[in-house]
Amino acid sequence: MPQYKLIYFKTTGIAELARYLFSYADQDFEDVRHDITTWPKFQRETPYGVLPLLEIDGKVYNQSLAIGRYLAKEFNLTGSNKLEDLEIDSMVDTINDYRSVFSQYLWEANKTAKSKRKEQLVQEKLPFYLNRFEDRVKANGGYFVGGKLTWADLWFVSLKPYLDFVIGFDTLKNHAALTEHANKINAIPNIKKWLDTRPTECCIQEFLDAKQQD
Amino acid sequence: MPQYKLIYFKTTGIAELARYLFSYADQDFEDVRHDITTWPKFQRETPYGVLPLLEIDGKVYNQSLAIGRYLAKEFNLTGSNKLEDLEIDSMVDTINDYRSVFSQYLWEANKTAKSKRKEQLVQEKLPFYLNRFEDRVKANGGYFVGGKLTWADLWFVSLKPYLDFVIGFDTLKNHAALTEHANKINAIPNIKKWLDTRPTECCIQEFLDAKQQD
Repeated sequence: MPQYKLIYFKTTGIAELARYLFSYADQDFEDVRHDITTWPKFQRETPYGVLPLLEIDGKVYNQSLAIGRYLAKEFNLTGSNKLEDLEIDSMVDTINDYRSVFSQYLWEANKTAKSKRKEQLVQEKLPFYLNRFEDRVKANGGYFVGGKLTWADLWFVSLKPYLDFVIGFDTLKNHAALTEHANKINAIPNIKKWLDTRPTECCIQEFLDAKQQD
Repeated sequence: MPQYKLIYFKTTGIAELARYLFSYADQDFEDVRHDITTWPKFQRETPYGVLPLLEIDGKVYNQSLAIGRYLAKEFNLTGSNKLEDLEIDSMVDTINDYRSVFSQYLWEANKTAKSKRKEQLVQEKLPFYLNRFEDRVKANGGYFVGGKLTWADLWFVSLKPYLDFVIGFDTLKNHAALTEHANKINAIPNIKKWLDTRPTECCIQEFLDAKQQD
Protein backbone atom coordinates (compact mmCIF):
# COMPACT_ATOMS: atom_id res chain seq x y z
CA MET A 1 0.00 0.00 0.00
CA PRO A 2 1.51 3.38 -0.97
CA GLN A 3 2.27 6.06 1.62
CA TYR A 4 0.26 9.22 0.94
CA LYS A 5 1.09 12.69 2.25
CA LEU A 6 -1.29 15.52 1.32
CA ILE A 7 0.06 19.05 1.79
CA TYR A 8 -2.28 22.04 1.86
CA PHE A 9 -3.48 24.79 4.20
CA LYS A 10 -5.55 24.79 7.40
CA THR A 11 -8.81 24.86 5.43
CA THR A 12 -10.97 22.77 3.12
CA GLY A 13 -10.67 24.58 -0.26
CA ILE A 14 -9.39 22.71 -3.29
CA ALA A 15 -7.67 19.97 -1.24
CA GLU A 16 -10.83 18.73 0.44
CA LEU A 17 -11.57 16.64 -2.67
CA ALA A 18 -8.49 14.49 -1.94
CA ARG A 19 -9.47 14.27 1.74
CA TYR A 20 -12.99 13.14 0.74
CA LEU A 21 -11.51 10.54 -1.61
CA PHE A 22 -9.13 9.15 1.03
CA SER A 23 -11.97 9.07 3.57
CA TYR A 24 -14.41 7.42 1.15
CA ALA A 25 -11.86 4.67 0.50
CA ASP A 26 -10.92 4.39 4.20
CA GLN A 27 -7.33 5.06 3.11
CA ASP A 28 -4.85 6.43 5.65
CA PHE A 29 -3.02 9.60 4.62
CA GLU A 30 -0.81 12.17 6.30
CA ASP A 31 -2.75 15.46 6.35
CA VAL A 32 -0.14 18.27 6.50
CA ARG A 33 -1.71 21.72 6.97
CA HIS A 34 0.18 25.00 6.59
CA ASP A 35 -0.78 28.43 7.88
CA ILE A 36 0.67 31.91 7.52
CA THR A 37 3.53 31.16 9.93
CA THR A 38 4.84 28.04 8.12
CA TRP A 39 3.84 28.77 4.51
CA PRO A 40 6.40 31.41 3.36
CA LYS A 41 9.34 29.11 4.15
CA PHE A 42 7.69 25.99 2.71
CA GLN A 43 6.54 27.79 -0.45
CA ARG A 44 10.15 27.94 -1.69
CA GLU A 45 10.26 24.11 -1.64
CA THR A 46 7.18 23.65 -3.85
CA PRO A 47 7.39 23.03 -7.63
CA TYR A 48 5.23 26.04 -8.66
CA GLY A 49 4.69 28.00 -5.44
CA VAL A 50 1.17 26.67 -4.89
CA LEU A 51 -0.67 23.94 -3.00
CA PRO A 52 -2.01 21.26 -2.75
CA LEU A 53 0.74 18.72 -3.28
CA LEU A 54 0.42 14.98 -2.92
CA GLU A 55 3.43 12.84 -2.07
CA ILE A 56 3.07 9.21 -3.12
CA ASP A 57 5.87 7.14 -1.60
CA GLY A 58 7.95 10.32 -1.37
CA LYS A 59 7.44 11.52 -4.97
CA VAL A 60 5.73 14.92 -5.22
CA TYR A 61 2.74 15.61 -7.53
CA ASN A 62 0.89 18.92 -7.91
CA GLN A 63 -2.52 20.18 -9.14
CA SER A 64 -5.68 19.43 -7.14
CA LEU A 65 -7.73 18.03 -10.03
CA ALA A 66 -4.95 15.86 -11.43
CA ILE A 67 -4.49 14.47 -7.91
CA GLY A 68 -8.27 14.00 -7.57
CA ARG A 69 -8.51 12.12 -10.88
CA TYR A 70 -5.64 9.81 -9.92
CA LEU A 71 -7.15 8.98 -6.53
CA ALA A 72 -10.59 8.50 -8.12
CA LYS A 73 -9.04 5.88 -10.42
CA GLU A 74 -7.40 4.16 -7.44
CA PHE A 75 -10.66 4.14 -5.48
CA ASN A 76 -13.06 3.28 -8.36
CA LEU A 77 -14.88 6.60 -8.64
CA THR A 78 -14.19 7.25 -12.34
CA GLY A 79 -16.44 6.34 -15.30
CA SER A 80 -16.95 2.92 -16.80
CA ASN A 81 -15.68 3.96 -20.25
CA LYS A 82 -13.83 6.80 -22.03
CA LEU A 83 -16.97 8.75 -22.94
CA GLU A 84 -18.23 8.63 -19.34
CA ASP A 85 -14.81 9.86 -18.16
CA LEU A 86 -15.08 12.70 -20.69
CA GLU A 87 -18.44 13.66 -19.14
CA ILE A 88 -16.99 13.48 -15.62
CA ASP A 89 -13.87 15.47 -16.58
CA SER A 90 -15.96 18.15 -18.29
CA MET A 91 -18.27 18.38 -15.25
CA VAL A 92 -15.26 18.63 -12.91
CA ASP A 93 -13.75 21.48 -14.96
CA THR A 94 -17.10 23.30 -15.15
CA ILE A 95 -17.45 23.04 -11.36
CA ASN A 96 -13.93 24.47 -11.23
CA ASP A 97 -15.01 27.43 -13.39
CA TYR A 98 -17.84 28.02 -10.88
CA ARG A 99 -15.34 27.81 -7.98
CA SER A 100 -12.96 30.22 -9.71
CA VAL A 101 -15.56 33.00 -9.65
CA PHE A 102 -15.59 32.76 -5.83
CA SER A 103 -11.78 32.72 -5.60
CA GLN A 104 -11.41 35.70 -7.93
CA TYR A 105 -13.83 37.65 -5.75
CA LEU A 106 -12.16 36.56 -2.49
CA TRP A 107 -8.63 37.56 -3.51
CA GLU A 108 -9.49 40.76 -5.44
CA ALA A 109 -7.37 43.50 -3.84
CA ASN A 110 -9.21 46.55 -5.23
CA LYS A 111 -12.26 47.48 -3.12
CA THR A 112 -14.42 48.78 -5.99
CA ALA A 113 -13.58 45.82 -8.22
CA LYS A 114 -14.26 43.44 -5.31
CA SER A 115 -17.71 44.88 -4.70
CA LYS A 116 -18.51 44.60 -8.43
CA ARG A 117 -17.29 41.00 -8.47
CA LYS A 118 -19.52 40.13 -5.49
CA GLU A 119 -22.59 41.57 -7.18
CA GLN A 120 -21.86 39.66 -10.38
CA LEU A 121 -21.23 36.47 -8.40
CA VAL A 122 -24.45 36.63 -6.37
CA GLN A 123 -26.78 38.04 -9.05
CA GLU A 124 -25.47 36.29 -12.15
CA LYS A 125 -22.83 33.60 -11.86
CA LEU A 126 -24.13 31.67 -8.85
CA PRO A 127 -27.67 31.17 -10.25
CA PHE A 128 -26.29 30.63 -13.78
CA TYR A 129 -24.18 27.65 -12.71
CA LEU A 130 -26.39 26.26 -9.95
CA ASN A 131 -29.56 26.22 -12.08
CA ARG A 132 -27.71 24.15 -14.67
CA PHE A 133 -26.14 21.88 -12.03
CA GLU A 134 -29.56 21.40 -10.38
CA ASP A 135 -31.13 20.37 -13.72
CA ARG A 136 -28.27 18.00 -14.37
CA VAL A 137 -28.49 16.24 -11.00
CA LYS A 138 -32.28 15.93 -11.38
CA ALA A 139 -31.88 14.43 -14.87
CA ASN A 140 -29.14 11.99 -13.78
CA GLY A 141 -30.77 10.10 -10.92
CA GLY A 142 -29.41 12.37 -8.19
CA TYR A 143 -25.78 12.43 -9.38
CA PHE A 144 -23.77 14.56 -11.80
CA VAL A 145 -22.88 11.83 -14.30
CA GLY A 146 -24.30 8.44 -15.23
CA GLY A 147 -26.77 8.04 -12.34
CA LYS A 148 -24.05 6.91 -9.95
CA LEU A 149 -21.47 8.28 -7.53
CA THR A 150 -18.30 9.60 -9.21
CA TRP A 151 -15.53 11.94 -8.15
CA ALA A 152 -17.45 14.85 -9.79
CA ASP A 153 -20.00 14.53 -6.95
CA LEU A 154 -17.28 14.53 -4.28
CA TRP A 155 -15.60 17.56 -5.91
CA PHE A 156 -18.80 19.63 -5.85
CA VAL A 157 -19.83 18.68 -2.32
CA SER A 158 -16.33 19.00 -0.83
CA LEU A 159 -16.15 22.63 -2.05
CA LYS A 160 -19.36 23.79 -0.35
CA PRO A 161 -17.92 24.94 3.03
CA TYR A 162 -15.27 27.04 1.24
CA LEU A 163 -17.80 28.65 -1.14
CA ASP A 164 -20.28 29.28 1.72
CA PHE A 165 -17.47 30.95 3.71
CA VAL A 166 -16.45 33.16 0.78
CA ILE A 167 -19.94 34.44 0.07
CA GLY A 168 -21.32 34.41 3.63
CA PHE A 169 -24.43 32.29 3.08
CA ASP A 170 -25.54 28.75 2.16
CA THR A 171 -24.76 28.65 -1.57
CA LEU A 172 -27.30 25.86 -2.12
CA LYS A 173 -30.19 27.45 -0.20
CA ASN A 174 -32.35 27.92 -3.33
CA HIS A 175 -31.50 24.57 -4.91
CA ALA A 176 -33.34 21.63 -3.33
CA ALA A 177 -31.93 18.87 -5.55
CA LEU A 178 -28.33 20.04 -4.99
CA THR A 179 -28.96 20.29 -1.22
CA GLU A 180 -30.33 16.75 -1.22
CA HIS A 181 -27.33 15.62 -3.31
CA ALA A 182 -24.91 17.18 -0.81
CA ASN A 183 -26.72 15.63 2.16
CA LYS A 184 -26.67 12.22 0.49
CA ILE A 185 -22.93 12.35 -0.24
CA ASN A 186 -22.14 13.63 3.25
CA ALA A 187 -24.19 10.79 4.80
CA ILE A 188 -22.00 8.08 3.23
CA PRO A 189 -20.64 6.47 6.44
CA ASN A 190 -16.90 6.89 5.70
CA ILE A 191 -17.44 10.49 4.63
CA LYS A 192 -19.66 11.22 7.63
CA LYS A 193 -16.88 9.88 9.88
CA TRP A 194 -14.43 12.30 8.20
CA LEU A 195 -16.82 15.26 8.57
CA ASP A 196 -17.35 14.44 12.27
CA THR A 197 -13.63 14.36 13.01
CA ARG A 198 -11.86 16.66 10.48
CA PRO A 199 -9.96 19.70 11.79
CA THR A 200 -12.02 22.89 11.72
CA GLU A 201 -9.26 25.49 12.08
CA CYS A 202 -9.31 27.85 9.09
CA CYS A 203 -6.41 30.06 7.96
CA ILE A 204 -8.11 31.99 5.13
CA GLN A 205 -8.82 35.13 7.16
CA GLU A 206 -5.19 35.52 8.27
CA PHE A 207 -4.02 35.39 4.63
CA LEU A 208 -6.70 37.95 3.67
CA ASP A 209 -5.63 40.24 6.53
CA ALA A 210 -1.95 39.98 5.51
CA LYS A 211 -2.87 40.84 1.90
CA GLN A 212 -4.74 43.90 3.16
CA GLN A 213 -1.59 45.18 4.90
CA ASP A 214 0.62 44.79 1.83
CA MET B 1 -15.51 5.89 -37.04
CA PRO B 2 -17.25 8.61 -34.98
CA GLN B 3 -18.23 11.94 -36.54
CA TYR B 4 -16.43 14.83 -34.82
CA LYS B 5 -17.52 18.47 -34.90
CA LEU B 6 -15.33 20.98 -33.05
CA ILE B 7 -16.92 24.35 -32.31
CA TYR B 8 -14.80 27.36 -31.35
CA PHE B 9 -13.83 30.82 -32.60
CA LYS B 10 -11.80 32.04 -35.58
CA THR B 11 -8.54 31.68 -33.67
CA THR B 12 -6.20 29.08 -32.17
CA GLY B 13 -6.60 29.61 -28.39
CA ILE B 14 -7.69 26.74 -26.18
CA ALA B 15 -9.24 24.74 -29.06
CA GLU B 16 -6.01 24.38 -31.02
CA LEU B 17 -5.10 21.41 -28.78
CA ALA B 18 -8.03 19.42 -30.23
CA ARG B 19 -7.09 20.53 -33.76
CA TYR B 20 -3.48 19.37 -33.15
CA LEU B 21 -4.76 16.04 -31.83
CA PHE B 22 -7.05 15.46 -34.82
CA SER B 23 -4.25 16.42 -37.20
CA TYR B 24 -1.66 14.24 -35.45
CA ALA B 25 -4.02 11.26 -35.79
CA ASP B 26 -4.98 12.18 -39.37
CA GLN B 27 -8.60 12.17 -38.16
CA ASP B 28 -11.21 14.15 -40.12
CA PHE B 29 -13.25 16.66 -38.12
CA GLU B 30 -15.63 19.49 -38.86
CA ASP B 31 -13.93 22.73 -37.78
CA VAL B 32 -16.72 25.24 -36.99
CA ARG B 33 -15.41 28.75 -36.26
CA HIS B 34 -17.51 31.58 -34.82
CA ASP B 35 -16.81 35.30 -34.88
CA ILE B 36 -18.49 38.34 -33.37
CA THR B 37 -21.32 38.24 -35.91
CA THR B 38 -22.40 34.61 -35.28
CA TRP B 39 -21.40 34.15 -31.63
CA PRO B 40 -24.12 36.05 -29.69
CA LYS B 41 -26.90 33.94 -31.23
CA PHE B 42 -25.02 30.65 -30.92
CA GLN B 43 -23.95 31.36 -27.33
CA ARG B 44 -27.54 30.81 -26.15
CA GLU B 45 -27.42 27.24 -27.47
CA THR B 46 -24.27 26.29 -25.53
CA PRO B 47 -24.39 24.41 -22.19
CA TYR B 48 -22.43 27.03 -20.18
CA GLY B 49 -22.07 30.00 -22.54
CA VAL B 50 -18.47 29.19 -23.46
CA LEU B 51 -16.46 27.38 -26.14
CA PRO B 52 -14.95 25.06 -27.26
CA LEU B 53 -17.51 22.31 -27.65
CA LEU B 54 -16.94 18.93 -29.25
CA GLU B 55 -19.80 17.00 -30.80
CA ILE B 56 -19.18 13.27 -31.03
CA ASP B 57 -21.85 11.63 -33.19
CA GLY B 58 -24.16 14.54 -32.35
CA LYS B 59 -23.69 14.50 -28.56
CA VAL B 60 -22.20 17.73 -27.16
CA TYR B 61 -19.25 17.81 -24.73
CA ASN B 62 -17.61 20.90 -23.24
CA GLN B 63 -14.29 21.92 -21.62
CA SER B 64 -11.12 22.12 -23.70
CA LEU B 65 -8.93 19.97 -21.44
CA ALA B 66 -11.56 17.26 -20.88
CA ILE B 67 -11.95 17.11 -24.67
CA GLY B 68 -8.15 17.05 -25.10
CA ARG B 69 -7.74 14.20 -22.61
CA TYR B 70 -10.46 12.15 -24.34
CA LEU B 71 -8.94 12.61 -27.79
CA ALA B 72 -5.45 11.87 -26.40
CA LYS B 73 -6.77 8.52 -25.14
CA GLU B 74 -8.33 7.80 -28.55
CA PHE B 75 -5.09 8.68 -30.36
CA ASN B 76 -2.61 7.06 -27.90
CA LEU B 77 -1.02 10.21 -26.50
CA THR B 78 -1.72 9.52 -22.81
CA GLY B 79 0.61 7.83 -20.30
CA SER B 80 1.40 4.15 -20.03
CA ASN B 81 0.08 3.86 -16.45
CA LYS B 82 -1.93 5.81 -13.85
CA LEU B 83 1.08 7.54 -12.30
CA GLU B 84 2.31 8.74 -15.70
CA ASP B 85 -1.20 10.05 -16.43
CA LEU B 86 -1.10 11.89 -13.10
CA GLU B 87 2.16 13.54 -14.21
CA ILE B 88 0.67 14.45 -17.59
CA ASP B 89 -2.56 15.80 -16.06
CA SER B 90 -0.65 17.87 -13.51
CA MET B 91 1.62 19.27 -16.26
CA VAL B 92 -1.43 20.09 -18.43
CA ASP B 93 -3.12 21.97 -15.56
CA THR B 94 0.10 23.83 -14.72
CA ILE B 95 0.44 24.90 -18.37
CA ASN B 96 -3.19 26.04 -18.07
CA ASP B 97 -2.28 28.16 -15.02
CA TYR B 98 0.47 29.76 -17.15
CA ARG B 99 -2.05 30.37 -19.99
CA SER B 100 -4.57 31.89 -17.55
CA VAL B 101 -2.17 34.70 -16.66
CA PHE B 102 -2.18 35.76 -20.32
CA SER B 103 -5.99 35.54 -20.60
CA GLN B 104 -6.52 37.53 -17.41
CA TYR B 105 -4.27 40.26 -18.78
CA LEU B 106 -5.90 40.21 -22.23
CA TRP B 107 -9.49 40.57 -20.95
CA GLU B 108 -8.83 42.98 -18.06
CA ALA B 109 -11.15 45.95 -18.68
CA ASN B 110 -9.51 48.46 -16.30
CA LYS B 111 -6.56 50.27 -17.94
CA THR B 112 -4.46 50.66 -14.77
CA ALA B 113 -5.07 47.07 -13.69
CA LYS B 114 -4.24 45.87 -17.22
CA SER B 115 -0.93 47.67 -17.25
CA LYS B 116 -0.06 46.20 -13.84
CA ARG B 117 -1.03 42.72 -15.04
CA LYS B 118 1.22 43.08 -18.10
CA GLU B 119 4.21 44.07 -16.00
CA GLN B 120 3.64 41.14 -13.64
CA LEU B 121 3.22 38.76 -16.59
CA VAL B 122 6.40 39.84 -18.40
CA GLN B 123 8.64 40.42 -15.38
CA GLU B 124 7.52 37.62 -13.07
CA LYS B 125 5.06 35.02 -14.28
CA LEU B 126 6.46 34.31 -17.75
CA PRO B 127 10.04 33.63 -16.57
CA PHE B 128 8.74 31.82 -13.44
CA TYR B 129 6.83 29.25 -15.47
CA LEU B 130 9.10 29.02 -18.52
CA ASN B 131 12.30 28.50 -16.49
CA ARG B 132 10.62 25.55 -14.77
CA PHE B 133 9.18 24.19 -18.03
CA GLU B 134 12.60 24.53 -19.70
CA ASP B 135 14.28 22.56 -16.89
CA ARG B 136 11.61 19.91 -17.12
CA VAL B 137 11.91 19.41 -20.88
CA LYS B 138 15.72 19.25 -20.57
CA ALA B 139 15.46 16.64 -17.80
CA ASN B 140 12.88 14.53 -19.69
CA GLY B 141 14.60 13.81 -22.98
CA GLY B 142 13.06 16.78 -24.80
CA TYR B 143 9.45 16.18 -23.72
CA PHE B 144 7.32 17.23 -20.74
CA VAL B 145 6.67 13.76 -19.32
CA GLY B 146 8.32 10.36 -19.56
CA GLY B 147 10.77 11.14 -22.38
CA LYS B 148 8.10 10.69 -25.06
CA LEU B 149 5.41 12.61 -26.91
CA THR B 150 2.18 13.06 -24.91
CA TRP B 151 -0.77 15.42 -25.17
CA ALA B 152 0.97 17.74 -22.62
CA ASP B 153 3.51 18.57 -25.36
CA LEU B 154 0.76 19.28 -27.91
CA TRP B 155 -1.10 21.47 -25.37
CA PHE B 156 1.95 23.64 -24.70
CA VAL B 157 3.00 24.02 -28.32
CA SER B 158 -0.54 24.58 -29.66
CA LEU B 159 -0.96 27.56 -27.29
CA LYS B 160 2.14 29.45 -28.46
CA PRO B 161 0.57 31.57 -31.28
CA TYR B 162 -2.19 32.76 -28.92
CA LEU B 163 0.25 33.63 -26.11
CA ASP B 164 2.65 35.36 -28.55
CA PHE B 165 -0.30 37.41 -29.89
CA VAL B 166 -1.43 38.43 -26.40
CA ILE B 167 1.97 39.63 -25.25
CA GLY B 168 3.30 40.88 -28.59
CA PHE B 169 6.57 38.94 -28.76
CA ASP B 170 7.93 35.39 -29.10
CA THR B 171 7.20 33.98 -25.61
CA LEU B 172 9.94 31.35 -26.01
CA LYS B 173 12.69 33.70 -27.25
CA ASN B 174 14.84 33.23 -24.10
CA HIS B 175 14.26 29.49 -23.76
CA ALA B 176 16.28 27.40 -26.22
CA ALA B 177 15.09 23.96 -25.07
CA LEU B 178 11.41 25.00 -25.26
CA THR B 179 11.97 26.54 -28.70
CA GLU B 180 13.60 23.31 -29.87
CA HIS B 181 10.71 21.35 -28.33
CA ALA B 182 8.13 23.47 -30.20
CA ASN B 183 10.02 23.15 -33.50
CA LYS B 184 10.24 19.38 -33.06
CA ILE B 185 6.49 18.99 -32.38
CA ASN B 186 5.59 21.33 -35.24
CA ALA B 187 7.80 19.32 -37.63
CA ILE B 188 5.83 16.08 -37.09
CA PRO B 189 4.54 15.56 -40.67
CA ASN B 190 0.79 15.44 -39.87
CA ILE B 191 1.08 18.52 -37.64
CA LYS B 192 3.21 20.35 -40.20
CA LYS B 193 0.51 19.65 -42.80
CA TRP B 194 -2.07 21.21 -40.43
CA LEU B 195 0.10 24.27 -39.77
CA ASP B 196 0.64 24.77 -43.49
CA THR B 197 -3.09 24.71 -44.27
CA ARG B 198 -4.98 25.91 -41.15
CA PRO B 199 -7.11 29.07 -41.38
CA THR B 200 -5.26 32.17 -40.21
CA GLU B 201 -8.21 34.55 -39.72
CA CYS B 202 -8.27 35.74 -36.08
CA CYS B 203 -11.33 37.25 -34.31
CA ILE B 204 -9.73 38.21 -30.98
CA GLN B 205 -9.27 41.90 -31.82
CA GLU B 206 -12.94 42.38 -32.77
CA PHE B 207 -14.04 40.94 -29.41
CA LEU B 208 -11.54 43.20 -27.61
CA ASP B 209 -12.81 46.24 -29.54
CA ALA B 210 -16.44 45.39 -28.73
CA LYS B 211 -15.55 45.06 -25.03
CA GLN B 212 -13.91 48.48 -25.14
CA GLN B 213 -17.15 50.04 -26.35
CA ASP B 214 -19.28 48.48 -23.59
